[in-house]
Order: sequence, then C-alpha cells, then structure tokens
Amino acid sequence: MPISERKRLLRETILDASEQIMAAHGIGALKARDIARAAGCSLGAIYTVFTDIDDLVLAVNSRTLTRLEAQLSAYPEPQERLPEAAISWMVSLSLIYLDFASQNRLLWRAVFEHRMAARPLPEEQARQHQALFAFIERPLEQLMIENDAEARMLLARSLFSAVHGIVALGLEEKLTGMSMESLKQQIRIVVSASTVGLLARAFGVAAF
Amino acid sequence: MPISERKRLLRETILDASEQIMAAHGIGALKARDIARAAGCSLGAIYTVFTDIDDLVLAVNSRTLTRLEAQLSAYPEPQERLPEAAISWMVSLSLIYLDFASQNRLLWRAVFEHRMAARPLPEEQARQHQALFAFIERPLEQLMIENDAEARMLLARSLFSAVHGIVALGLEEKLTGMSMESLKQQIRIVVSASTVGLLARAFGVAAF
Repeated sequence: MPISERKRLLRETILDASEQIMAAHGIGALKARDIARAAGCSLGAIYTVFTDIDDLVLAVNSRTLTRLEAQLSAYPEPQERLPEAAISWMVSLSLIYLDFASQNRLLWRAVFEHRMAARPLPEEQARQHQALFAFIERPLEQLMIENDAEARMLLARSLFSAVHGIVALGLEEKLTGMSMESLKQQIRIVVSASTVGLLARAFGVAAF
Repeated sequence: MPISERKRLLRETILDASEQIMAAHGIGALKARDIARAAGCSLGAIYTVFTDIDDLVLAVNSRTLTRLEAQLSAYPEPQERLPEAAISWMVSLSLIYLDFASQNRLLWRAVFEHRMAARPLPEEQARQHQALFAFIERPLEQLMIENDAEARMLLARSLFSAVHGIVALGLEEKLTGMSMESLKQQIRIVVSASTVGLLARAFGVAAF
C-alpha cells in the first residue's frame, strides 16, 4: 500500500474513533490517549495526520455539518410559488434541524461549543456555516423578503440563529421540561409568525 | 465574630473569587486550588460552605441571573396600551439582554454551559429561569397574544430562546463577523416581525 493511501486510512480510522467518542461522551471527553486506544494506533500517529486535537475536532465537526447539509438538501423545493408554500418550507427546514440536533445531540453541540484559542475558523468550516444559512435564503428570496442580497443573507443568518436558540434551549432539559411535540409546535409558531411579519413589512403593511 | 457570620463572610469571599475567575477565564478555568489561592483560604474551607464545585458555579450563576433580572426590571412598562408600544417594549427587553450578554460574556455563557451530571437544576435556579421568560409574558399579555396562560408561557419561553440564539451566535465571532450595530438591527427586525406575525394570528388575519 502506498504511504499516501496508508495515511488516508489512518486518518479515517482516527476520525471514526474520535467521532464515536464525541457522539457518546461529548467534546470534553476527547483525549489523545483514548483516541489512540480506540483507533489502535500510537499516540504519535495521531499527529502525523492531524496538526493537533483542534484540527481533529474541526474534521469531526465538518462531517457533522456535511450530514446536516445533506438532510436539509433532501427537502424538495416547493413547486408552487405561494406564500403558504414558502412558509411551510421554512418550517420544514427548521424541523429537520430540530430532528438532526435531537438525534446527534453531542456531535451537534460540539459544532457550537468548540472554540479555538485565538485562531480564526478555517475557510472550509466558515463556508459550511454559510451553506446552512443559505437554506433559509432561498425561501426568503421566493417570498421577496429583502431584495438586497446582503440584507437577505444577514436576515437568513438571524432566523437560523433564532431557530437554533429554540432548539438548543429546548433540548437542554435544564431550561425546559418541554416535550418534543410541544417543541415542534413552538418552532412552527415562531417561524411562521416571523415570516408573516416579514411579509407584512415587505408589503408595506407593517413598518419596523 | 460568631461562627455563622464567619461562614457567611467566607462564602462571600469564595463566591467573589470564583466570579472573578469565571468572568476572566470562563467556567472551564474554575479549579478549587485557584479559588482557594484567590480567596486566601484553604482548599478544605471551600467545602465547608459549598457542597462541591457545581454548587459554587450555581451560586455564581444565580448572581449573574439576579443582575440580569435587575436590568430587565429597570425597563419601565409602557403607559400607552398600543401595539407599537408593546412591540418596542419587547425589542427593548431583547436589546437589554444583548447588552448584558455582551458585557458579561463569560459569566453569561456559564449560565448556559454549566451542566450537572444527572442532577436536576435546583428549584431556586429553575425559578430564576422562569422569571426571565416572564418578562416576555407581560407584553404578550398586553397584546392579547395567547390568552391561555400555559400557551403564553410556552411562547414567551420560545421567543426568549429565539433572541438568545441570535445573541449567542451573534456574539460568537466564530459564526459571524457581525458588528454590534448590525446585531441590534437584526434583533429589532426579528422580534418585531415575530410579534407582528403573532398579532396577525391572534386577530385571525393569518392562520398557522
């Protein structure tokens, strides 16, 4: 086996092991020693394929974001160009996000909890975050809410963040005793209400 | 000095030291050894006034929540019972939340990051979280959005969570390069839009 192929395999094995540890115990439990044991490699081998543990966490987070993107992409863009269809589109994307977060609790949390001391987010990871916001931009565009691309991007990011907040605090038993059904209903209400309000603003019915 | 008074003073000193460490370096940096050094007491003394470090973090978080509550309480309830006044009231409360989070970044983050292994949140802390949601319930009540108290409480919690999400991801440089002014504008838009949409629903103009 050529060295490059051996390295690729080692990288995948370490990535799989790290993902399993993070999925089961969270980002705080990721220790080089345990990764090496689970991957069946030496401690030093990790650093031949990853710069450091931050680099490894980023690679796991990138996998998580890729899976989330795939689930959001699978939702078919509505054929009818009706406000109701666009609103239900936004609600559906939000519910996909909730389901993903709920089923990948610790991996999803790791995407948001991971902070790198004084290092900016690598370009690829930043692009993946942008791609998430872009899912919200499409229905906003169809509804002709914010015709300026920059303003639409900012708004998509804010709506994404709002849904993220409801999902994050909702899943955190600490703050709520909310059932999954009730959480879905709340997302439906808040996302629909925001969109109706934004439409009222776009059509000059409400000023804010 | 009676023992009870000495204990009270020791508790305050340890609490002050812990708060300073958490404010400067975050919850992850809170170590018993450092607390004892900063408070000028022995390691064992900490455990005469706090059950464990979780108990201590909860006490710091409770202080943080009390300060946040005080700032939200300071905002005067609008005299006029107009929809515009109630919407601007909700926006103002959200902006107070943003300012507080921005000025108390790590202490505020500790309230949400602190997770206790398999222990429910103590009643007093749960009450403090409820009190935050209650600030949103008052304008919703005035606007006659959700006349059922239980539904209103759930909605207040969801709107709080939505604003929390915008603030949390907005302040996290990682996900955004948003300026504070732009962040405030986004909060204004999303909170106003949600409230207008909820009003449209309450008045039977929109169904969702």
